[in-house]
Amino acid sequence: MIEPYTVEEIRRARARLGTRVVTTPVHELQGPAIEETFGAGTQALLKLELLQRTGSFKPRGALLNMLALDADALRRGVCAISAGNHAIATAFAASLLGSSAKIVMTASANPFRVAACRRYGAEVEIAADVHQGFARVEQIRESEGRAFIHPFEGRTTALGTATLGLEFCEQAPMLDAVIVPIGGGGLCAGVAAAFKLIEPRCEVFGVEPEGADSMYRSFAAGSPQPIERVATIADSLGAPYALPITFEICRRNVDGLARVTDAQLVEAMRFLLEQAKLAVEPAGAAATAALMGPLRERLAGKRVGLVVCGSNIDAASYARLIA
Amino acid sequence: MIEPYTVEEIRRARARLGTRVVTTPVHELQGPAIEETFGAGTQALLKLELLQRTGSFKPRGALLNMLALDADALRRGVCAISAGNHAIATAFAASLLGSSAKIVMTASANPFRVAACRRYGAEVEIAADVHQGFARVEQIRESEGRAFIHPFEGRTTALGTATLGLEFCEQAPMLDAVIVPIGGGGLCAGVAAAFKLIEPRCEVFGVEPEGADSMYRSFAAGSPQPIERVATIADSLGAPYALPITFEICRRNVDGLARVTDAQLVEAMRFLLEQAKLAVEPAGAAATAALMGPLRERLAGKRVGLVVCGSNIDAASYARLIA
Repeated sequence: MIEPYTVEEIRRARARLGTRVVTTPVHELQGPAIEETFGAGTQALLKLELLQRTGSFKPRGALLNMLALDADALRRGVCAISAGNHAIATAFAASLLGSSAKIVMTASANPFRVAACRRYGAEVEIAADVHQGFARVEQIRESEGRAFIHPFEGRTTALGTATLGLEFCEQAPMLDAVIVPIGGGGLCAGVAAAFKLIEPRCEVFGVEPEGADSMYRSFAAGSPQPIERVATIADSLGAPYALPITFEICRRNVDGLARVTDAQLVEAMRFLLEQAKLAVEPAGAAATAALMGPLRERLAGKRVGLVVCGSNIDAASYARLIA
Repeated sequence: MIEPYTVEEIRRARARLGTRVVTTPVHELQGPAIEETFGAGTQALLKLELLQRTGSFKPRGALLNMLALDADALRRGVCAISAGNHAIATAFAASLLGSSAKIVMTASANPFRVAACRRYGAEVEIAADVHQGFARVEQIRESEGRAFIHPFEGRTTALGTATLGLEFCEQAPMLDAVIVPIGGGGLCAGVAAAFKLIEPRCEVFGVEPEGADSMYRSFAAGSPQPIERVATIADSLGAPYALPITFEICRRNVDGLARVTDAQLVEAMRFLLEQAKLAVEPAGAAATAALMGPLRERLAGKRVGLVVCGSNIDAASYARLIA
């Protein structure tokens, strides 16, 4: 049993993050092309979390975890494993707090993201695959005494993402529904918990790629499940399993889950480019894809919040995806 | 002699536009990649006017002009000629005010923009070229009694764009410099006038594509000049001449002009994609291109505002440009 959050606790967490993270703007899509896409009367409000420091929501959780470390622990530094946004966020947080970060990334990681980590001063090691990567980061943790910063699991991690939910509730009051992308589920857990406390009338939906639907399978089984194979263009949503804390917070606060195909993600990326003027990696388009596809009828005529959770992608890869 | 604006007049204009236009957010770029690009210590704050209704700053001027029309004139409707953002803005403004718009676009206009105009209910006529287009819109004006809404010239048009300057001054106080793209110069005239009234210490720079540098040539000649040939990928900045009112307001308020090449525009588009998460048409990248290129040394270590003036581009064209 995870201790439930209180509104006061989320507010304190947001205050603790302070100006280290940005209160990202909310942008309402408007006009006839929007009505054609989502249906007449449906309102779509984007939480532009891709404008967060490091380009994704990840610093909220990483920073909150690291702000809990004592001076000794900060001196020893942190370690993490991630192919993407969490790696950059951990590097950023370490640099901001005068600590150091050692990040294990897999050989498949986008060079753009590896470079972003190194720019923040992190030491990056490349592992051949995810199994060797996990073994290596465990070795680093033990031998160097570095604190391991998990990419999604943990009560404090979801408290970090709850600060995004708090902001969204305050910036866009009276939402009927909010749609949140799920990789490991840390973002969705925190946002859902915040909404259920502050705007309990609002329905919360999680969205996963069909090829990385660990939370969907976990909900169906009633316990955290792994998936055999991750197969999606939304690499930032490609968590291979759900974990207990995140699963429990999601199960308690999420009203429904949707799944989208890679083709729907690409369609939503093009839509966001043309209508919202945003260049998003596939994960950042997932909430929009859900409202264009599986949740369109269910949320017709509603006031819907869409979390644009982040984007770190190079121009060439982006051009290939949308071409 | 154009009567100078007052701060109160600009505030009244912004109040008159009211919620018909969005107070677009300002986003500060931060992080080591930003310092590498602009130089250590240089701050870059983006005015995200591409999130304006219709995707560009153009509704500010078009609406303000149309709000000055009486009921009879609104009943007769308006007409305009434009290949792009002004066409969409005029269609939007007419639909919002219960009027009607007849827009002449040239055969070279991007189908994405033609479709956007029609979605707002405008009647679009396609002319073979710009000369036939001007002849046709003049014919429409005379025979149907429609008010002609100019894409950039006029004191009221620049008063509309001055409301963007007012917002930017208030949202991002103490800028050392602001960089504004110039097509016909309507945006730059209004923004420069607002800054010189509200934040007079701030230097104002206009930026043009090398292949459409009518304001640069006009400044050099001391009077509004045409150019022989427009040759730039920034179609929204491709005005073939400067005109007297805009020229005079710019000359009075602009501290310097910069020119950028198409290659610099593409480089800035890629930078904005990767670092600001924005998908911008070439014109929207012009201010950023100037700070990456010709103005980089001059503004080193300064706090610089960049007007991201708009973006209306389809995914396929965008992918081709950045690939």
